[in-house]
Amino acid sequence: MPTYLRRFGKDAAQIVEPVPSDIDVAQAVEPAHITQVASAAGFHPDDVLQHGPHKAKIDIGALKRFPASNKGNYVVVAGITPTPLGEGKSTTTVGLCQALGAHLNKKVITVVRQPSQGPTFGIKGGAAGGGYAQVIPMEEFNLHLTGDIHAITAANNLVSAALDARMFHEATQKDEALYNRLCPADKDGNRRFSPVMLRRLKKLGIAKTDPNELTPEERTSFARLDVDPEKVTWRRVLDTNDRFLRKITVGQNPTEKGMERVTGFDIAVASEIMAVLALTTSLADMRERLGRMVVATDRSDNPVTTDDLGVGGALTVMMKDTIHPTLMQTLEGTPVLVHAGPFANIAHGNSSIVADQIALRAVGNDGYVVTEAGFGADIGMEKFCNIKCRYSGIDPDCAVIVATVRALKMHGGGPPVVAGKPLDHAYKSENVELASRGTCNLVRHIENARGFGIPVVVALNRFATDTEAELAAVKAAALAAGASDCVVCEHHAKGGAGAADLGNAVARVCEEARKGPSTFKFTYPVEQSLKEKIEAIATKIYGASGVSYSALAEEKIALFTKQGFGNLPICMAKTQYSFSHDATLKGAPVGFTLPVNDVRCSAGAGFIYPLIGDMPTIPGLPTRPAYYEIDIDMETGKVLGLS
Amino acid sequence: MPTYLRRFGKDAAQIVEPVPSDIDVAQAVEPAHITQVASAAGFHPDDVLQHGPHKAKIDIGALKRFPASNKGNYVVVAGITPTPLGEGKSTTTVGLCQALGAHLNKKVITVVRQPSQGPTFGIKGGAAGGGYAQVIPMEEFNLHLTGDIHAITAANNLVSAALDARMFHEATQKDEALYNRLCPADKDGNRRFSPVMLRRLKKLGIAKTDPNELTPEERTSFARLDVDPEKVTWRRVLDTNDRFLRKITVGQNPTEKGMERVTGFDIAVASEIMAVLALTTSLADMRERLGRMVVATDRSDNPVTTDDLGVGGALTVMMKDTIHPTLMQTLEGTPVLVHAGPFANIAHGNSSIVADQIALRAVGNDGYVVTEAGFGADIGMEKFCNIKCRYSGIDPDCAVIVATVRALKMHGGGPPVVAGKPLDHAYKSENVELASRGTCNLVRHIENARGFGIPVVVALNRFATDTEAELAAVKAAALAAGASDCVVCEHHAKGGAGAADLGNAVARVCEEARKGPSTFKFTYPVEQSLKEKIEAIATKIYGASGVSYSALAEEKIALFTKQGFGNLPICMAKTQYSFSHDATLKGAPVGFTLPVNDVRCSAGAGFIYPLIGDMPTIPGLPTRPAYYEIDIDMETGKVLGLS
Repeated sequence: MPTYLRRFGKDAAQIVEPVPSDIDVAQAVEPAHITQVASAAGFHPDDVLQHGPHKAKIDIGALKRFPASNKGNYVVVAGITPTPLGEGKSTTTVGLCQALGAHLNKKVITVVRQPSQGPTFGIKGGAAGGGYAQVIPMEEFNLHLTGDIHAITAANNLVSAALDARMFHEATQKDEALYNRLCPADKDGNRRFSPVMLRRLKKLGIAKTDPNELTPEERTSFARLDVDPEKVTWRRVLDTNDRFLRKITVGQNPTEKGMERVTGFDIAVASEIMAVLALTTSLADMRERLGRMVVATDRSDNPVTTDDLGVGGALTVMMKDTIHPTLMQTLEGTPVLVHAGPFANIAHGNSSIVADQIALRAVGNDGYVVTEAGFGADIGMEKFCNIKCRYSGIDPDCAVIVATVRALKMHGGGPPVVAGKPLDHAYKSENVELASRGTCNLVRHIENARGFGIPVVVALNRFATDTEAELAAVKAAALAAGASDCVVCEHHAKGGAGAADLGNAVARVCEEARKGPSTFKFTYPVEQSLKEKIEAIATKIYGASGVSYSALAEEKIALFTKQGFGNLPICMAKTQYSFSHDATLKGAPVGFTLPVNDVRCSAGAGFIYPLIGDMPTIPGLPTRPAYYEIDIDMETGKVLGLS
Repeated sequence: MPTYLRRFGKDAAQIVEPVPSDIDVAQAVEPAHITQVASAAGFHPDDVLQHGPHKAKIDIGALKRFPASNKGNYVVVAGITPTPLGEGKSTTTVGLCQALGAHLNKKVITVVRQPSQGPTFGIKGGAAGGGYAQVIPMEEFNLHLTGDIHAITAANNLVSAALDARMFHEATQKDEALYNRLCPADKDGNRRFSPVMLRRLKKLGIAKTDPNELTPEERTSFARLDVDPEKVTWRRVLDTNDRFLRKITVGQNPTEKGMERVTGFDIAVASEIMAVLALTTSLADMRERLGRMVVATDRSDNPVTTDDLGVGGALTVMMKDTIHPTLMQTLEGTPVLVHAGPFANIAHGNSSIVADQIALRAVGNDGYVVTEAGFGADIGMEKFCNIKCRYSGIDPDCAVIVATVRALKMHGGGPPVVAGKPLDHAYKSENVELASRGTCNLVRHIENARGFGIPVVVALNRFATDTEAELAAVKAAALAAGASDCVVCEHHAKGGAGAADLGNAVARVCEEARKGPSTFKFTYPVEQSLKEKIEAIATKIYGASGVSYSALAEEKIALFTKQGFGNLPICMAKTQYSFSHDATLKGAPVGFTLPVNDVRCSAGAGFIYPLIGDMPTIPGLPTRPAYYEIDIDMETGKVLGLS
């Protein structure tokens, strides 16, 4: 295994068959010091904010060290409609980069999402790739990392505390007392508005800066947010799989004087603040987004924002260090930026714009930036294009669509695939017809990518039970559908060497794509109405024949349009297990009507999210969670039992 | 201002009168790079885990780099019974170290607690000292630091999620199904117990290691924790001042099938896990403590622990990086270790043993380690001696008791002092008689320290309105009560130079103390009964004539004794505003009966805590919280408005 690591004086992984557990593979390699990885990636030492020997934040200021004209080849990795077992999208993202960087001598930076810590101790286990294609140290990747999710939790919950406390103080004080407490006189008897208060005055159209000059009516409208307790949309978060917090009643202590309210917690990565982090482009932009998040509606149907609560600046202070992406490395020593990890249903499920921006400049025009889009391509790639690329203004050069014969057989009509249950015989023996029938799913994802004007390479992750005839059938279908290439990959078992063909294919396609002008295009212009935009995605991407709206959805669409949010892009909250809203409809369904049950707004992050079915926003723990195996070896200090 | 900082090529602070705001003083000095501070303090580069340029974790392994015989002079800073304004204990701790290190050429390390982030955005503001005696960068100190409190939050809440989920799974599954889910067969049909399960088997006296060999009765007793929902003592935490979480009902979503439960959140620093961090002495010790925390009582009155839940190892993994203290610096460049910040009422209110251990070795036998004890000395110093020093086995050499003329006047019968209200005239003009009368409070704290066998230096923080006659009266009383010295200090206005006399006095006293054998002694042996130990503290330290117990307290004392926790030391949860339980009883009250309302157990941290009155465990937000002023200057990136 030729490898970057030799540059750093470290040994490469010794390939073992069969592949040991992920943590055993990961811990068998001694990572390079992160300053070596940073230096090889071209980062200036002043921009490398070390967090111990194997992680560093890369200061967003690094952007200014590289020519603004630098723009690496921008590759997005997406997947076909997945089985519950996963098809190896993260592993492919990492393996492709190990191939490009450690085997094909290209400059490359991988950009991935930070995983939630909740599932690490619950069912799912880690998310750093797998086998010989991993981000290391995997225990650092899966645990606190550099604290970004913790900062989001703290910031999110300050909003909740501020909101409930404000409702309490408004309910227990008369207008003048409330105003006087908000704008108290200092010891010399002077009063002044803090800067965040001036934002609220501006919103209210009150052009005064001296608290003494407001009329009684102005004082009331300034001091009373008049939140409708039934229309609070902001929820608390924790990065823990705590099912008992899904629905709770708060305010039951006598000190809260009976102001009980039904609410709930989401998992931290579902916070709008995570989506803000992922979509922001600078500290100043983050300040604006964190201030315009809508937390509730007032009794006159106006949106109440975090800046109305006075908390937008404090949120930015809590979040200031999160804007710097975290640098880690793959098993073969190539650089990885880990940054942001928004939900892929109620949010857009992509890593940050900032990390992509830094990476694209750092690798230079001949280099590669490989970034992963969550869920199947109908969701992850669609949101990558219509939301992330729209806000970043950066066009992708190539899409990699990850497929497996196993999953395509399921789409061809194979029996259900259930995590934790043995795989049916159909998936372990040759059945070319089943696999061929299932390529309809892959084909539609390829067509969708082509619809965005992006050339496609299909990465076909090989399992031991796949046969040459099955692989050939998939390849033929992919090429016929317009894929530029379809490559069989073995990075899980072989590291970057197992993805060298994929790396070469991606390089060829990028080179070709960049010969002409960008052909990238969105599915809809944001100026369309919310319904037009929803219908564009439903019909053009999902294959629906139309969209139906519940009464609630109609009402919310009217409200958001009236509130001025009609020009935001759309972020569909839909199952990843089908193109449709029905997880059991495999393959490439057509003719269905997509039902929109509810519509919500992330005004700070900058999108409207229609709910297509129920989206669980905080997982639970099974009877025997992953934590039963997790411990520390007291002799070596190593983490045991992470998977 | 002569200063360490010159060593590092940085400019010292320019003293300005009157003293600017804390953040302005702090931001006017450019901190040295933390690797320079670490190197000057004698730490090996491999033990310095950088977190950006101004913070580093010092690996607990650093202990092994220094001779085990190294033991610096160990100085604890405590205070008289405080006013609500605070008497400057943290500021004195920092100022004394700036004096010793930057002016008197001694090796010194300051050890302080990490503050909760909640109050930073609420009422209190920061906690890094003040004026020209501060830990910098103060915004880093007051915000996320290196993530220890966030790790505690995550670990604490994993316990809650695990507990509620376990109660749910036990309620919805029959014995055999529950057992089979806890010990599932792998794909080869084999079953095994995870290491944490073997701990539970050992506790139950089941000497088997093969899951197939347990009898049905053994399976039931292994699988059923049988928690009494009415006797769950573990609560969730957040590092946010969120009053609406004081009392809540969880489990109201239909997925939890009606298993509602009334519970609540505490602020993160009130978590027992914080107390564990503060009292642990090694990673292996932390593993044991995190596994024996009691979360509930079962229906047969047995304690249910975190290891019974299977989560002790996972907690250790989440907490593994927190065991390394965080290195920062004072305004004059002397080293500071920041580590742990347990509540001072329901916990013991002292920074960590690990940080003190590392510091005592690093400074060597001629050096100084100055550590602060929370609240008044009747609580902070008492717990420092009877809990922290008992677990660490390290004897202190000197106690500094911080006093102000202002506070002593209050104890002499002056009018009430209320935060946010103007000070009464009595505190701003000479009144020697009032100050003299109040010295009774200082005298008892001195006598208490002498009772522990520790020599005392009184640090008298000077205010502009203090007169020489008042200061002389306090000094005379202190010396008469057995203090070795009483020194007037001006570090708030002048930095280390203003505490040089205090530094010299402390150095003299330590030198004298170490000429003979240690005279340090505890208030009680742990072998005494819980009641005997409570009564020893009440009568010997507080001046009570006796103790009364509620029926609940009697019941809990009997329960904890039966459960085997009778030999733990005592951690009194009492107001800091009086020696007694009544905050209005100033001076040195005698003849009162101390009422114990309830008694609780922190079995992992290792103490029993009697509740003397109500202890609020999560603060709220006022109408106009501190966050209204907090923002970032987009030009400079500086944090604005922290106080």
